[in-house]
Amino acid sequence: MSECTFCKIVNGEIPSYKVYEDRYILAFLDRNPVHEGHTLVIPKKHSETILDTDDETLRKLVVATRKISKAIYKSLKLKGFNIGINQFKVAGQAVPHLHIHIMPRHENDGLRLWPSREYESELEKMKVLEKIRKLLK
Amino acid sequence: MSECTFCKIVNGEIPSYKVYEDRYILAFLDRNPVHEGHTLVIPKKHSETILDTDDETLRKLVVATRKISKAIYKSLKLKGFNIGINQFKVAGQAVPHLHIHIMPRHENDGLRLWPSREYESELEKMKVLEKIRKLLK
Repeated sequence: MSECTFCKIVNGEIPSYKVYEDRYILAFLDRNPVHEGHTLVIPKKHSETILDTDDETLRKLVVATRKISKAIYKSLKLKGFNIGINQFKVAGQAVPHLHIHIMPRHENDGLRLWPSREYESELEKMKVLEKIRKLLK
Repeated sequence: MSECTFCKIVNGEIPSYKVYEDRYILAFLDRNPVHEGHTLVIPKKHSETILDTDDETLRKLVVATRKISKAIYKSLKLKGFNIGINQFKVAGQAVPHLHIHIMPRHENDGLRLWPSREYESELEKMKVLEKIRKLLK
């Protein structure tokens, strides 16, 4: 038996409030929503992050996420929503099974994006670019 | 000529710090990063949000995002990262051309996920579920 909480939700060992299900994908209400209707979309096939998910599963996941986002957006009469994937513990990933957050948003709901800054120099930008690009060649 | 800032980046009218490019996808450094290496991945074909992006473009976008995430994660020796898509102005979308944020994360970097709550009742959950599911039938 898998020890993964989301695998247990997939196989019915742990109950969930199902929003959507097909052969490959399951979506259910987040137990601790930022707003009502906050939904998690997961591939049934276990992987920890997108880094170890196969291409076909990833494609199915994103198309389902769009479909579910649209239903949430329309049915809850939203003005917008955020999609988020937290990858690894340091980024806030609480369950090590890939999941996509769909978070409903409302006018003046007090949620703020993270603070950002500017690069200090051209050199700083070029250095980080060079590092990343090397692995994309 | 398109008035869209990201379309102008795609066609070279506005310069960018390119991280990756192929026939369909462009990735470049966010000018205002939450951390060094914060990257935006966009489809070259214009759409405002995932709601009006065609399936094939969406599939290409997510597979490219995984590839670029992996390069950022490895090259910058990260412990984790967040992927985010802000949909519509109320959710913080500053440019109305679909873009995916890849945000590097570090231990104790002070960035916090949004506060969450619990549903007040079973009824509240069932009501929201019913609304969303109706559009997924």
